[in-house]
Amino acid sequence: MSLDPDAAASLGTVRVIGTGLLGTSLGLALSTQGTRVLLQDPSPTALRLARDLGAGELDLPGSTARVTVVAAPPDVTAGVVLAALAADPGTTVTDVASVKAEILREVQDAGADVSRYVGGHPMAGRERSGPLAARGDLFVGRPWVLCPGDKCDPARRDDVRLLAQAAGAQPVVMPAAEHDVAVALVSHVPQVVASLVAARLQDGAEQAVALAGQGLRDVTRIAASDPMLWAQILAANAAPVADVLEVLRADLDGVVAHLRALAAGDPPPPPRPPGPTGARPGPVRGASALAGVADLIVRGNVGRERIPGKHGGGPTRYVALTVAVPDRPGQLARLFADIGAAGINVEEITLEHAPGRAVGLIELSVLPTAETALEQALADGGWQVVA
Amino acid sequence: MSLDPDAAASLGTVRVIGTGLLGTSLGLALSTQGTRVLLQDPSPTALRLARDLGAGELDLPGSTARVTVVAAPPDVTAGVVLAALAADPGTTVTDVASVKAEILREVQDAGADVSRYVGGHPMAGRERSGPLAARGDLFVGRPWVLCPGDKCDPARRDDVRLLAQAAGAQPVVMPAAEHDVAVALVSHVPQVVASLVAARLQDGAEQAVALAGQGLRDVTRIAASDPMLWAQILAANAAPVADVLEVLRADLDGVVAHLRALAAGDPPPPPRPPGPTGARPGPVRGASALAGVADLIVRGNVGRERIPGKHGGGPTRYVALTVAVPDRPGQLARLFADIGAAGINVEEITLEHAPGRAVGLIELSVLPTAETALEQALADGGWQVVA
Repeated sequence: MSLDPDAAASLGTVRVIGTGLLGTSLGLALSTQGTRVLLQDPSPTALRLARDLGAGELDLPGSTARVTVVAAPPDVTAGVVLAALAADPGTTVTDVASVKAEILREVQDAGADVSRYVGGHPMAGRERSGPLAARGDLFVGRPWVLCPGDKCDPARRDDVRLLAQAAGAQPVVMPAAEHDVAVALVSHVPQVVASLVAARLQDGAEQAVALAGQGLRDVTRIAASDPMLWAQILAANAAPVADVLEVLRADLDGVVAHLRALAAGDPPPPPRPPGPTGARPGPVRGASALAGVADLIVRGNVGRERIPGKHGGGPTRYVALTVAVPDRPGQLARLFADIGAAGINVEEITLEHAPGRAVGLIELSVLPTAETALEQALADGGWQVVA
Repeated sequence: MSLDPDAAASLGTVRVIGTGLLGTSLGLALSTQGTRVLLQDPSPTALRLARDLGAGELDLPGSTARVTVVAAPPDVTAGVVLAALAADPGTTVTDVASVKAEILREVQDAGADVSRYVGGHPMAGRERSGPLAARGDLFVGRPWVLCPGDKCDPARRDDVRLLAQAAGAQPVVMPAAEHDVAVALVSHVPQVVASLVAARLQDGAEQAVALAGQGLRDVTRIAASDPMLWAQILAANAAPVADVLEVLRADLDGVVAHLRALAAGDPPPPPRPPGPTGARPGPVRGASALAGVADLIVRGNVGRERIPGKHGGGPTRYVALTVAVPDRPGQLARLFADIGAAGINVEEITLEHAPGRAVGLIELSVLPTAETALEQALADGGWQVVA
């Protein structure tokens, strides 16, 4: 893991308030590098679990810490931040909530010492929650957004930057309002849309839902998220999310109009007016409804291409080979023994397996420079490459 | 693979017209089981590639086949079906296009011998296209929908059922109109929505798009699909897709109204009227806008739960353990050797790896009955289980 022991060593004591997924994961990341971590949580069970997992020690009244991390639910974060600022007059306080402008405003409006508060948002999470889902590498390689307010002391901002680095994350500084607009686009709107699609399945016929494939599973995966958490997040970022959704709705209206025209064999609908905040105008006058539908798919292609790869820094380009592997113990060992013997490092693995099928399909991704060697190693080992 | 050699053996000669991804994959599935496959394609390059890959032999004028499979682009399928019915008066003709009612109507309206035509739709595909992306197991375990018309000879339907079985698929018979409504819900609407979300990224700030995570990647994966193919599919199924999109839009309108109310601190909006085709009514009068937002996420949870697992038959429930694996050749071999020596069969694997990171995380999924044995094997091998 690229945790950062140097950053961790110069960090000093860290207090974590809230030992759920994020707080416990941060405690693990820091504790394993020798940083002293003090843990607080209103739930004695969650607190003891986090301690037993190795996330830190129980905090005691009157303790001091260089940095206090509030990892509480979004709707109580501002209050906990204020209490943390008051309880330890020397500590730098940050939080991990997904929406930043409203919390900053609440903290400022309360008249607290905002020079010591630095809003934060590590872009990391899991579908599971709670301390048991925590992992010390949760933040590794992920952006960790810092949103210092106008009155924030730069030295306090640097404290939190060091914290993010110690956890292996990449600190990114931006104003709270800009952060909230960004996460509306890349996180909150996708959540709403996934839920919209999944909600349609409630009423679908059994035989229809049975035809679902990987595309639907991918589009709706995050629709399994926690409703109370997401209601809080969306409520706290309501205007930026609504702004994006309204532009999206203008595109949706255009597609529906095109489809209705196609269904009716009508002439194409008139072009749509430009959307409120940057939506593209509809297809040019005279273009067919078919072209209008294709236009949306093309724009989706272009937008999709902009998403950075899994590990940041542009889409990763690996070469993938698919190997048929007999579905019994020991076969994967033999496969990876052959690959390892050839000195090849596998970057990504996907195993597709159906119970009762005699063969699993394993997709091996390697750097392009290793492709020929992998092909040779597989051929030498008598493996069946199917794609 | 659970191809079905018995079905293949009783099938007789099969003609495949169109050697793209689906046609070539079918040819591979049948040829490897000894079925004689005759190949046609207007592109000599695609045709020779498919033959060289082992999908079958070149078709010659005057040949006969028990079943002819039209695997052409959707917008030319009906014409190719008609030509195939006329060219070989004894053959059963089926196709693989994603939309069925319009093709059936065109074939019927042309006055052809519709007793020999059975519309088909194997629910299988890949992001890549063309014969080089073909694989003989493409259809294994997937539904293959058959849509015989009113005048279809049941023996012809059974021919195509046998074909689907030989390819390892699960035949499902349903009327063409019902099929089209089903795929609008589980395939075409998700495609449109993925494109709508991805299209929003066109205009997003660089720093915003850089914050993208796995959720956005999943929601927009299929937004990378081929625009011309999808314009054809959506156009051919325009009314059923528009029907679902309009209900979805009613839900979207509700969410936007709730968010605007939350942003303004207004009292909640009045409940929405019921949607045109089964949309749930809005939250009950007096419920807060926050509850309205949570309600959508909850309904998404419920819909998402209905999606069958990767291999059909209800969501698969495996137990997953995540192991830290040093990022160098040979480590995966050692891991799988340890697992194989313990007689454990791994059902699914996900390797999460960042270049330059010293440790990769590999998630191993096993049947619940194998969990304890896996934990023991990992502990014995000195592996670090991180979650």
